[in-house]
Amino acid sequence: MGKAYSVALASLPMYVWPCPAMPVRDMIAEATPELAEDARTRFGYERATSDWREAVNDPAIDVVVILTPNHMHREMALEATAAGKHVICEKPLAPSSKDATEMLAAAERAGVVHQTGFNWRLTPAVQQAKKLIADGTLGDIRDFRGHWLGDFAFDDSLPMIWRFKRATAGSGALGDLGSHVADFARCLVGEIDQVAGIDATYTKTRTGADDTPDEVDVDDSTVFLARFASGAHGFLEASWATPGRKSFAGFELHGSKGSLSFDWERMNELRFYDSRDPADRQGFRTILVGPGQPGGEHFWPVAGYQIGYAETKLLQLLDLIGAIVEGRAPQTTFSDGLAAVRLEEAVIESCRSGTWVSVAGDETGGR
Amino acid sequence: MGKAYSVALASLPMYVWPCPAMPVRDMIAEATPELAEDARTRFGYERATSDWREAVNDPAIDVVVILTPNHMHREMALEATAAGKHVICEKPLAPSSKDATEMLAAAERAGVVHQTGFNWRLTPAVQQAKKLIADGTLGDIRDFRGHWLGDFAFDDSLPMIWRFKRATAGSGALGDLGSHVADFARCLVGEIDQVAGIDATYTKTRTGADDTPDEVDVDDSTVFLARFASGAHGFLEASWATPGRKSFAGFELHGSKGSLSFDWERMNELRFYDSRDPADRQGFRTILVGPGQPGGEHFWPVAGYQIGYAETKLLQLLDLIGAIVEGRAPQTTFSDGLAAVRLEEAVIESCRSGTWVSVAGDETGGR
Amino acid sequence: MGKAYSVALASLPMYVWPCPAMPVRDMIAEATPELAEDARTRFGYERATSDWREAVNDPAIDVVVILTPNHMHREMALEATAAGKHVICEKPLAPSSKDATEMLAAAERAGVVHQTGFNWRLTPAVQQAKKLIADGTLGDIRDFRGHWLGDFAFDDSLPMIWRFKRATAGSGALGDLGSHVADFARCLVGEIDQVAGIDATYTKTRTGADDTPDEVDVDDSTVFLARFASGAHGFLEASWATPGRKSFAGFELHGSKGSLSFDWERMNELRFYDSRDPADRQGFRTILVGPGQPGGEHFWPVAGYQIGYAETKLLQLLDLIGAIVEGRAPQTTFSDGLAAVRLEEAVIESCRSGTWVSVAGDETGGR
Amino acid sequence: MGKAYSVALASLPMYVWPCPAMPVRDMIAEATPELAEDARTRFGYERATSDWREAVNDPAIDVVVILTPNHMHREMALEATAAGKHVICEKPLAPSSKDATEMLAAAERAGVVHQTGFNWRLTPAVQQAKKLIADGTLGDIRDFRGHWLGDFAFDDSLPMIWRFKRATAGSGALGDLGSHVADFARCLVGEIDQVAGIDATYTKTRTGADDTPDEVDVDDSTVFLARFASGAHGFLEASWATPGRKSFAGFELHGSKGSLSFDWERMNELRFYDSRDPADRQGFRTILVGPGQPGGEHFWPVAGYQIGYAETKLLQLLDLIGAIVEGRAPQTTFSDGLAAVRLEEAVIESCRSGTWVSVAGDETGGR
Repeated sequence: MGKAYSVALASLPMYVWPCPAMPVRDMIAEATPELAEDARTRFGYERATSDWREAVNDPAIDVVVILTPNHMHREMALEATAAGKHVICEKPLAPSSKDATEMLAAAERAGVVHQTGFNWRLTPAVQQAKKLIADGTLGDIRDFRGHWLGDFAFDDSLPMIWRFKRATAGSGALGDLGSHVADFARCLVGEIDQVAGIDATYTKTRTGADDTPDEVDVDDSTVFLARFASGAHGFLEASWATPGRKSFAGFELHGSKGSLSFDWERMNELRFYDSRDPADRQGFRTILVGPGQPGGEHFWPVAGYQIGYAETKLLQLLDLIGAIVEGRAPQTTFSDGLAAVRLEEAVIESCRSGTWVSVAGDETGGR
Repeated sequence: MGKAYSVALASLPMYVWPCPAMPVRDMIAEATPELAEDARTRFGYERATSDWREAVNDPAIDVVVILTPNHMHREMALEATAAGKHVICEKPLAPSSKDATEMLAAAERAGVVHQTGFNWRLTPAVQQAKKLIADGTLGDIRDFRGHWLGDFAFDDSLPMIWRFKRATAGSGALGDLGSHVADFARCLVGEIDQVAGIDATYTKTRTGADDTPDEVDVDDSTVFLARFASGAHGFLEASWATPGRKSFAGFELHGSKGSLSFDWERMNELRFYDSRDPADRQGFRTILVGPGQPGGEHFWPVAGYQIGYAETKLLQLLDLIGAIVEGRAPQTTFSDGLAAVRLEEAVIESCRSGTWVSVAGDETGGR
Repeated sequence: MGKAYSVALASLPMYVWPCPAMPVRDMIAEATPELAEDARTRFGYERATSDWREAVNDPAIDVVVILTPNHMHREMALEATAAGKHVICEKPLAPSSKDATEMLAAAERAGVVHQTGFNWRLTPAVQQAKKLIADGTLGDIRDFRGHWLGDFAFDDSLPMIWRFKRATAGSGALGDLGSHVADFARCLVGEIDQVAGIDATYTKTRTGADDTPDEVDVDDSTVFLARFASGAHGFLEASWATPGRKSFAGFELHGSKGSLSFDWERMNELRFYDSRDPADRQGFRTILVGPGQPGGEHFWPVAGYQIGYAETKLLQLLDLIGAIVEGRAPQTTFSDGLAAVRLEEAVIESCRSGTWVSVAGDETGGR
Repeated sequence: MGKAYSVALASLPMYVWPCPAMPVRDMIAEATPELAEDARTRFGYERATSDWREAVNDPAIDVVVILTPNHMHREMALEATAAGKHVICEKPLAPSSKDATEMLAAAERAGVVHQTGFNWRLTPAVQQAKKLIADGTLGDIRDFRGHWLGDFAFDDSLPMIWRFKRATAGSGALGDLGSHVADFARCLVGEIDQVAGIDATYTKTRTGADDTPDEVDVDDSTVFLARFASGAHGFLEASWATPGRKSFAGFELHGSKGSLSFDWERMNELRFYDSRDPADRQGFRTILVGPGQPGGEHFWPVAGYQIGYAETKLLQLLDLIGAIVEGRAPQTTFSDGLAAVRLEEAVIESCRSGTWVSVAGDETGGR
């Protein structure tokens, strides 16, 4: 993640010129002075520190980016907003909606710009999807199915790591991967009111570095039905144990006038069906992303020329910098981070109880 | 349906030679003498009748094929089995599990061969999927997602027809399309124990031939989660209101060692991932169906040469005739028809109640 | 081939009703009385003969279908036309343009309807392509690339068969497969004036049934550039030695306003690009074939429901019967068969000479 | 191009750490002091100049990157190599093989590392293709077809620009796009001995900024057959007038044991067929590029996570820096640039003469 943000910071003015504001890689913080100095050289920062509070409180610094493990987000975000810094925090925003609510409140009280790192929705193909929905081309959105399927953990022989323990990771595939799917859903269809889910843990014991078997207490896979506030329904799934699916993150949704589908493994394509096309020549169009789609104008002059993961982080930073300069909220604030955590909590509860569960009050979670 | 069965009957010995038994198109029954005679000429039968009881009780006839509307199945099947005929009945087997149970019991009592018309699972690509599961290539099956999405009814201006009324159709997309998805699921993963669903009717009123608006009281779309008896979980969906999806029927499933996906719109392909492939050259394989896949040996000598819907009906008839000759059950008996009706009833109940619902006793519904 | 035609004849009225004329499977000829009787039973003919002249001269017979090896076509076609029969002859029409010219002249002199068995162009997706060109949607056609790639002969261990000898087969992949590609090209872009080709034989010796190695003297692969009379250019290729390509027959062509691509392995799809679509939502559309495409109206009521090889033979027979009833020429006459042979001769000459070669006078080969 | 190189230089150590040598963006040269200073700020260089000779001769500078128009390459490269600098030059290396030969000789004489900017072959999917060929998995390579199809110029209303004049551009689509296809071919199959081509100019007149119609004297499209030194044959095409194809650059090739296909529009995928797979489960595999493919290990930990155009320029720079540090040649030297120019000259000659033309002596053009 330090890599992704640093590449994006360095290349932002190269792609977007003139840039709304010139990003400076001023200070990087790491756990030890040695790690910090190594990261400084590698990622091209001016200063390094092993004390994150030094960075957070430095008067020269305007924006703090929090890329630490989940459970450290709250403390860092509270101190950064207290110091009046704009804050980017990676997802999941916090291990609990209680923490996330506190972080959102602090950021709003401080009047700073706050952003949760949901870069995936900023992919030009996804923004084009949003545009086709917003301008009415698709009609009323009736259903949504989203997925993030990978296979890094399908194998029993993979050793125990922190991701497989609830204490360190909160949840498994649901929080790690499902949060992106939920963000697609909220971005394109709106808030989810109710969920009913099933989770599964296929590998129940993994062996750690010390050769001791240890219990996996998070989900390898979670699927759930969703009722959206709009009346649409959805199906969302996240798994890191589906052989052959590597970064298979995407969605298909249908409206009363047309349909869309997207998959990250072909992130420079959007499939679009317009029911108004003449009867003998209707079909899903494969739109190749380029300068004609939102955000694509910053990269290459020809459609299909390919951008990748790093460019979506750049678009996230551009959104943040634009928000600071223009005095507006970015597309994904701490509200979105909180909404994702609340949804995750509801899904976990529904898997446990075997019932439909309402997602906690969305009064602060809207877009 | 008369067309599909007649094409299949006529071409069966042409493809499968020698044929286990030579099918004769002996008598066709229709509502009126005129319709019956027209059908006789068109479809190449020797005799025609406007009284189905004549056909069902004719001593020269060995097999009765019931292609009438749903609510007439029970009476015809009971009379045919009483007359000692082998019986094929189109799906859904009956409007209620009560009727279907009676039909199954009667057929078993009579000792005849009985078949429900689930031809889709006999597609060579699907049979190849079944083979890869049966021989252990995929490992334990962990999840299943199946779909049958069409768009013939997405448009409000489509007039009222019998499919949109519960009294004549039982249910909407769920029964018409979802029954095929459920059959894929049962064929490949086994029985479903519990379901939780959501249904939706987008066009609530349609105008009939007499210009009177009439209420649609069946689902345009139903989606549900499933818990399989094996412990696997699933997501199944059926809709006739998804623009751009025409005959989009298929599945993707993952096992502990590999994965499969299939779509009817490309019915001569099966996508297969084997996790044992070397690390730098792994990927989903697109298997083109041909003589190397089960059932494909009857058609063309080269893979990819394309068979279509009619050939799957032929494979269904071949299975029935083989069953009669060999004294075994075909792949899809009335048990499968009953299991599908029970599942549908459970899904409807779960949509109504907003709870997980158990599928009624499967003691007779196994494969 | 007997299978394909018989299935098509039997199912024609079942699909197309009322049928322009009712086909009767009257007499089938085979090499011996035993073979003929077996074929009669299997394929459902009324009479059998081991003397093709009996069939050709039988006064009850209206149409003769010639499915014998290439070198027998001429004699049979001449006798059939002399007897006043309408004639279907499989491709390649003859081993030489001299023979083909004679056959065309005889058929024209006799005033009968004549057809060469180029069923592939009658695929509804290909007819839809033709329609989009004819109505000007694509603008001027600028280029064409066509392919028929298979792999049945990529393996050295495949034994010697008649297809690998010039004396029996005329040419190799070029005549067997390339003739379909050439027919796509002629159907969609028009006559070809000049060609420059390369051929290759990868397996130079194969071992026959008697364990004697024998020289392969036909091409495993032929590729050639083409200059169309219209000014467009093209690239055509045929190979039966391309691993993994099974029945990979199709084309991509570009016009001044749009583009098309088609592959037989997905014969129920046509990919179409319209440059007039709005800039942010342009893309190749995947048209699923159904009742909305030419010829598709005879089969299933829903797009994407899948037809296969047999249905294209049916469409060929329908074209012939319509031609007889309406007193018009079918889409593919002996002229098209002759044009294909002339093109093949020019390609072979260009491979031999290493120069561009003109295709012999098309005065009789146009459509 | 300044953008692409600068992004790659800045992000190189971020992805590849430790880096074989640390790139410093020292000096950037532009046409005027104002442009140079603007570029310096945007792209993060330490110094700027409007005199390229200053950069080329600065003792602090080790590597010169030449991104100017084609006709300026020779002078700059000669002066840079004379000053003992390592040199990267964008393709096409020179407007004529005479110039390119001189540049190569100078670089070899100076003993510096020289590179032509053929980054496309360094795409991990293409390097994986190369690996599968090199390790014998594909057997003997028998044929190759490559394409670079775009549509930026299909429209008559696009104004006259320098690309449409031979004097400024050398050739049209052939040089601009075809050079990449030729490099794929040479990288994967080896040198090309003979060619036969066709070119076309669809829009013969374009109107410039001054409203004066001006003649287009370069090709909009060029296609050619190729005979490789190995005995394989090929077909290569380049067009910027094929509607709907945007950055459609790729290839399909077949060997005696397997096949490969690649398209830039899905640059993170390689399609691979292995004829040794068991008969009932053979098919093209879609390999998703990730850390398992050559070069992919520098980017993201999960396959399918997507890299784009910029990352291929980074891989090119990494190859150059490795070459300097290790005292070896990079994958694409000036020899490759010269070979591409010679091939282009032969193709142009063959289009003009209507004959097969030999590519000039490859004694210096090998890999």
